[in-house]
Amino acid sequence: MDGSFLIGSHAVSGGETFQAFDPATNEALDTDFAVSTVEHVAQACALADDAFDSFRDLDPEARATFLDTVADEIEATDGLVERAMAESGLPEARLTGERGRTCGQLRLFAKLLRQGRWANVVVDNAMPDRKPLPRADLRQRRIAVGPVAVFGASNFPLAFSVAGGDTASAFAAGCPVVCKGHPAHPGTSVLVGRAIQAAVKKCGLHEGVFSLIQGPANELGAALVRDPRIKAVGFTGSRGGGLALVEIAQNRPEPIPVYAEMSSINPVLLFPAALAARGEAMGKAYVGSLTMGSGQFCTNPGVVVGLDSPDLDSFAQTAADALVEAQPQVMLTSGIHANYDKGVELLSGQSSVETLARGAEGTGCNRGRAALFTTTGKAFIDNPELAHEVFGAASIIVKCQSFEEVRQVLAGMEGQLTITLQLDDADQEEAAKLLPLMERKAGRILANGWPTGVEVSYAMVHGGPFPATSDPRTTSVGTAAIERFLRPVCYQDLPDALLPKPVKHGNPLGLPRTVDGEQE
Amino acid sequence: MDGSFLIGSHAVSGGETFQAFDPATNEALDTDFAVSTVEHVAQACALADDAFDSFRDLDPEARATFLDTVADEIEATDGLVERAMAESGLPEARLTGERGRTCGQLRLFAKLLRQGRWANVVVDNAMPDRKPLPRADLRQRRIAVGPVAVFGASNFPLAFSVAGGDTASAFAAGCPVVCKGHPAHPGTSVLVGRAIQAAVKKCGLHEGVFSLIQGPANELGAALVRDPRIKAVGFTGSRGGGLALVEIAQNRPEPIPVYAEMSSINPVLLFPAALAARGEAMGKAYVGSLTMGSGQFCTNPGVVVGLDSPDLDSFAQTAADALVEAQPQVMLTSGIHANYDKGVELLSGQSSVETLARGAEGTGCNRGRAALFTTTGKAFIDNPELAHEVFGAASIIVKCQSFEEVRQVLAGMEGQLTITLQLDDADQEEAAKLLPLMERKAGRILANGWPTGVEVSYAMVHGGPFPATSDPRTTSVGTAAIERFLRPVCYQDLPDALLPKPVKHGNPLGLPRTVDGEQE
Repeated sequence: MDGSFLIGSHAVSGGETFQAFDPATNEALDTDFAVSTVEHVAQACALADDAFDSFRDLDPEARATFLDTVADEIEATDGLVERAMAESGLPEARLTGERGRTCGQLRLFAKLLRQGRWANVVVDNAMPDRKPLPRADLRQRRIAVGPVAVFGASNFPLAFSVAGGDTASAFAAGCPVVCKGHPAHPGTSVLVGRAIQAAVKKCGLHEGVFSLIQGPANELGAALVRDPRIKAVGFTGSRGGGLALVEIAQNRPEPIPVYAEMSSINPVLLFPAALAARGEAMGKAYVGSLTMGSGQFCTNPGVVVGLDSPDLDSFAQTAADALVEAQPQVMLTSGIHANYDKGVELLSGQSSVETLARGAEGTGCNRGRAALFTTTGKAFIDNPELAHEVFGAASIIVKCQSFEEVRQVLAGMEGQLTITLQLDDADQEEAAKLLPLMERKAGRILANGWPTGVEVSYAMVHGGPFPATSDPRTTSVGTAAIERFLRPVCYQDLPDALLPKPVKHGNPLGLPRTVDGEQE
Repeated sequence: MDGSFLIGSHAVSGGETFQAFDPATNEALDTDFAVSTVEHVAQACALADDAFDSFRDLDPEARATFLDTVADEIEATDGLVERAMAESGLPEARLTGERGRTCGQLRLFAKLLRQGRWANVVVDNAMPDRKPLPRADLRQRRIAVGPVAVFGASNFPLAFSVAGGDTASAFAAGCPVVCKGHPAHPGTSVLVGRAIQAAVKKCGLHEGVFSLIQGPANELGAALVRDPRIKAVGFTGSRGGGLALVEIAQNRPEPIPVYAEMSSINPVLLFPAALAARGEAMGKAYVGSLTMGSGQFCTNPGVVVGLDSPDLDSFAQTAADALVEAQPQVMLTSGIHANYDKGVELLSGQSSVETLARGAEGTGCNRGRAALFTTTGKAFIDNPELAHEVFGAASIIVKCQSFEEVRQVLAGMEGQLTITLQLDDADQEEAAKLLPLMERKAGRILANGWPTGVEVSYAMVHGGPFPATSDPRTTSVGTAAIERFLRPVCYQDLPDALLPKPVKHGNPLGLPRTVDGEQE
């Protein structure tokens, strides 16, 4: 195992070191990883800035080839899944799937680049004879914002880390990336970082297109966000962590956007006809979604809301019975496990909250014991603490006295990544009344499924109002994620020789265009 | 003249009052305008929130008709141009043109709504047989972010005020607007506000779609931005004003975006061949752009950069000769005039700055005397104060020793709305080298014209890196301005009966769609 971090084409070792831990045993894993310094951060940012102009003006085909090559190199990396398993405690099937998703999203962005609509070329032809004033020739395209800082996430060591969605979409936009690897999986990070480094070399790109900073201290990430050459930030993690980065970014002499995906309890609304028809199956599926991956998903269903009724009781009983059987799973880090236990303790200590069931007790370190609670709509409305995210397999069933109370429960919630409806035809009338409120509250509204499992596609929105994210105008999953890293530039009456290829008169890149308001 | 402010369908008067002043005389104009209180702000925001769901889900045609009706009502408003003249000191031709532009941009957004691409409908069809996991039916559209606060600008009493670009684009997106009228032109504001109110009524919309708050105190605007029902802010004005609103917005429990267009000196680069060929004509045109409207444009050319040479000297001399002839014009307010004089004094007091010419001295109040300065590239690079915006007809010619020094002058500048090139064919090689830097620095790059005069069209970008704006990913002029007030929502497996019309399976609104990655 390689203990270096990566500055451009170089692998740097020496100096202070840190280690990764197997969360299943709390034992240190084999390698000593070199800790980057703030000077290394500055070096990486300087290289990224050097690389920026050439990288952003690559022809789309060349950047697409680079993304494809990164995917190829990741697939060709021996021992990646094994290392990720050791560092995260996640099972092989999950990580094999996650590797597929990671490479799939790189290739989807490559396809998007080749389709060309992302560049948003808009041409208003000159109207020299217009009265009272002629119109100039105006050409708009979107360009990359600049070097981007990406923070690896603990819960997706591949798909939201070094070559995850933030990196893939930043690369696609034409932004060099300086990644801060998550300190819980440094070995996984360097393996993926080496794959990107190899792709940069194979494609003949400027080495500054990618660097990987490693180390456990928050100050490293703070220095990265403060660096004046960084122009945007991608982050998935805790609310506290995300807000700290937002504050740093806003207090720079030149403030920059932070795309932080932070906190969501992903309410699930159970409607009466659906409950009556398939309450038991729903109870089992709920616990399946809740306990998958020890509940360590941003879209984990943390709260279920329904009308107090025998059908809801029987749903809750089925869920409780299933949860008792749920085997404890290793959580990602001892810190996450400790926070989970604290969150569960806080909930179970609330006088208005009843503990319905706990998962099986396990042996070994960092085992997350699932937890199911229940409370009343009134108590949930009155006590905002019940709506705080507990990261892990904990969830609360809220029993309401009326649809109006369901509406109030929802209205009192902060912004969410998802809201789920379990409904049958007879429930549609009541659901329709709540839909406008749901649109205000969430980035994705889904029916008769469960919020975990986020498709990487064109229509996906993995985003939502604050504090689900720091910027509800965007998504961190799916092709629209590229828009976070682009800004428009308009060229007025520039001679054709000076115009960048995407907006030249002859359209040499063959990009789709909007001309005088009509799409071509 | 009506001295009310407007809360929904009501006109409110009584209580404290304030007055507008004729800047040409500093004398109070006829009417006493009622001052809104923070309670009125809360009422307006509550109404806007009530109106939000119905307004945002109007069929595009209905919202387009509303925008057209606002334009019709403005055109039918007697005495509007006259009142704007009295309150702003701007001449009739300018304000007649500005009224045309204001109505034109409302109608352009109406056209955009009818074209339908703004809703960005994206459909990923279900793939029930996909292995290893089926794909759900996913449908994305963009919805309005919520009620928007718009601040009227002093320098465009029509086109950037009550029914200006921010209001037009917010309405187009489906956002109710609570406007804070600029205290320098309250009469103009209420006339336009009445026109919007009439259009709301004619179109049968919820009265909360529009309110107009009036008053001189900053606290009123602060209360508006703090109101939890407001979800975005549009502002054009000073850097200090914009940054104050950004800070308030960021410190809310739910932070919201502020689109503030603030500060730009709009560099103009003169290349040698162009200078040699037509330096005199350029000198005259420069002064024309500089002194138009007393220089009170966001895109006023505040700095000109060229290679030190006899041609540059002769350009400067021509400009100085023209400037001496420039008659003083009334500035918008006594405060703006005082700030202008202060800025000119600061510049002329710099030891490295030479005053080339001052415009003719005038009699009467608030006459802005044009000012032309020159300095060296080295002095400009060493002294950031020389790059501060002086709002008004002041500009500085920077003489550089080399293209490398020109590059350094540009590299040291903050973000800009525009960068202008004066060049001939023989200059293209040097200009091409600077283009990537210009793209990093500005939202619009133009050749052989002058930055004043901003086309309202599809390709326009009136935006740019900080501090030109607080958000370089957007524009405040042109159709793309609508994107500031939209956010994406994804619907997964929702029954067709529950899907909003834009994303229904049968596409009843006939909106253009992207289906499985291909545009239809």
